[in-house]
Amino acid sequence: MSFSPLIRQLIDALRILPGVGQKTAQRTALHLLERNRSGALRLAEALEQAMQGVGYCERCRSLSEQPICNLCLDPRRDDNLLCVVEGPLDVQAVEQSGYRGRYFVLRGHLSPLDGLGPESIGIPELLERLEKGAFSELILATNPTVEGEATAHYIAQLLIQKDLLISRIAHGVPLGGELELIDGSTLSHALAGRKPLNPLD
Amino acid sequence: MSFSPLIRQLIDALRILPGVGQKTAQRTALHLLERNRSGALRLAEALEQAMQGVGYCERCRSLSEQPICNLCLDPRRDDNLLCVVEGPLDVQAVEQSGYRGRYFVLRGHLSPLDGLGPESIGIPELLERLEKGAFSELILATNPTVEGEATAHYIAQLLIQKDLLISRIAHGVPLGGELELIDGSTLSHALAGRKPLNPLD
Ligand SMILES: [Zn+2]
Ligand SMILES: [Zn+2]
Repeated sequence: MSFSPLIRQLIDALRILPGVGQKTAQRTALHLLERNRSGALRLAEALEQAMQGVGYCERCRSLSEQPICNLCLDPRRDDNLLCVVEGPLDVQAVEQSGYRGRYFVLRGHLSPLDGLGPESIGIPELLERLEKGAFSELILATNPTVEGEATAHYIAQLLIQKDLLISRIAHGVPLGGELELIDGSTLSHALAGRKPLNPLD
Repeated sequence: MSFSPLIRQLIDALRILPGVGQKTAQRTALHLLERNRSGALRLAEALEQAMQGVGYCERCRSLSEQPICNLCLDPRRDDNLLCVVEGPLDVQAVEQSGYRGRYFVLRGHLSPLDGLGPESIGIPELLERLEKGAFSELILATNPTVEGEATAHYIAQLLIQKDLLISRIAHGVPLGGELELIDGSTLSHALAGRKPLNPLD
């Protein structure tokens, strides 16, 4: 017995989910059809609404349903600090460390081999953001991976002439790890132990 | 930063998928929003179409988009044999063993503690199917679990008066396993080694 066209289509579509292979997609499709059709229909609607309703914050470039996100609008945050991360989940991770400045969310990291240069990951928008703000410190919290380090150093070089303290999270961040998987207190240490990349005199 | 309402709704909805916890749901939601919106919209449509378009075959009770499924309509199959399984994935598994008779698909197994009695799993429909057909043998291929064995024996007891060979797949099926995870040749042995539960004289 081969599956009918609509079931095959569902199995194929489920494979776009990270970590879902053919076997898992089959079991998931049949599980939904047999046990949870209402849940599956809610998921269909949630997917559609999110894909169509969620855009990017004009200021920090994080995912947002409004032109400017709540975090950017929050008047209680420190306008002197700008923390640069690789993605929205990293914002969540840094928040857990207790950081209460502003953010700028890149679209990943520089990856020349994949054709991802400064424009692809939002460096021009970062420069624009720096122009419009009045930041005294830029904290580079890209992932502690080879690509994340390279991206941080690229940004530091680009801004070396500016009157701006540029720092990189350092102590406590394990090499080769992914920022969003690190617990809040480790990140807390990393932020506290940040080192300037362009020591101002 | 907490996620915006549409992202939260998507994360919640993703948790209906088997094996998907809060962390995986978060990563999946953001992955789709950042990397694969078109795939996510295709998934939404596939879910909707499958949930609305796939019903059950009137004859074998397997998932089907038509009133009678292709397998039931196939004139080349052996009308003397009826194989009873717990779910649609088990049909796939038994097919791989080379079996070419007919099927009846229960909705799982008897589970009194969960309130699943004979009516809930489709036993009345199985009896009806047996009335309408002219089967010489009923092969009970429920899972080799405690519940699957109990379901097989319940069905065998129910039909003990009929002029029908009732058999249970046996050799090669590991105890405590799930039928759909067993390879075709093991199942092949299990089918070949089936034993009557009501030896006819
Ligand atoms: Zn924002
Ligand atoms: Zn059928």
